Amino acid sequence: MKGSSSIEVGEASKGASPRKGVTRGLSVMDFVLRILAAVGTLGAALAMGTTNETLPFTTQFIKFRAEFDDLPSLVFFVMGNSIVSGYLVLSLVLSVFHMLRSTAVKSRILLVAFDTVMMGLITASASAATSIVYIAHKGNAGANWFAICQQYNNFCERISGSLIGSYIAVALFTILIIISVLAISRN
Amino acid sequence: MKGSSSIEVGEASKGASPRKGVTRGLSVMDFVLRILAAVGTLGAALAMGTTNETLPFTTQFIKFRAEFDDLPSLVFFVMGNSIVSGYLVLSLVLSVFHMLRSTAVKSRILLVAFDTVMMGLITASASAATSIVYIAHKGNAGANWFAICQQYNNFCERISGSLIGSYIAVALFTILIIISVLAISRN
Repeated sequence: MKGSSSIEVGEASKGASPRKGVTRGLSVMDFVLRILAAVGTLGAALAMGTTNETLPFTTQFIKFRAEFDDLPSLVFFVMGNSIVSGYLVLSLVLSVFHMLRSTAVKSRILLVAFDTVMMGLITASASAATSIVYIAHKGNAGANWFAICQQYNNFCERISGSLIGSYIAVALFTILIIISVLAISRN
Repeated sequence: MKGSSSIEVGEASKGASPRKGVTRGLSVMDFVLRILAAVGTLGAALAMGTTNETLPFTTQFIKFRAEFDDLPSLVFFVMGNSIVSGYLVLSLVLSVFHMLRSTAVKSRILLVAFDTVMMGLITASASAATSIVYIAHKGNAGANWFAICQQYNNFCERISGSLIGSYIAVALFTILIIISVLAISRN
């Protein structure tokens, strides 16, 4: 088994020490990326969750105040980002454990499984919110949906900006999963 | 290195042969799930892409024909599902290769990386379309968005149904990634 795995990974000439060093390096990278993703998702949740705008003038709308929780997709965005942010903070414990014990495999498999599910959640949150933000900006002639951003300027700027943190987290999750897989393949 | 990895995977007592058998079993499962996911995404793309409805009566709308490409999120849904379906068919080649050569690791890592990106794409497609379908069904009082499903009944049933294939693919991708990681950890 050792022979075949060494050939596959192409590490036949290297000893256990540099191998462990690389795995530890991956674990450190994993730790840093998790912190960045946690900050991104927390920022996104806070930015979206605190957004509202009251118009100072009268329009044809009955309601003159826009809040993020008027739109279910934006509520889902805030919940998704909060859950993923909390998960990322909790996962730091396992990330530290992997730095200390670079040969751990089972806990890494567990982490990849959770990461994959959480990546699905954050991608879904970001995407659902994006399609609503798009309609808010552009409206839709076919469905007669009005571009509410023409009234609620600041509201739209805030909800558009808050998507960024979420998309950064999606990219980081992709990298995190690949890092974990690389670390597993080296043990 | 062999000692530590055997302890981690908890396979110290097993030989190379049952080990290989389990890995091959995972590869077969991988192959079957890829076909199911390809069928799901292709079906979703076709169902959504062929949806349109012309109303037989006059309403307050100027336009009496609803097509999926009136809504950018639904176009994204069709494109996303088509791309992922094509990718899944191509990935069957690697899946067969893994059945024949169960010790391959590098190609499995490559496959996980692609799978992760494609999972992001299919999740984003499904989620973007869902949030639009939700608005189409329920409308939104705050934004003054009208529930177009009140007019376009068949249209809405079709676009809602086509989401299912996409969500099945999301679930299957999660399982596919975990299967690949398990197979990698065994080599």
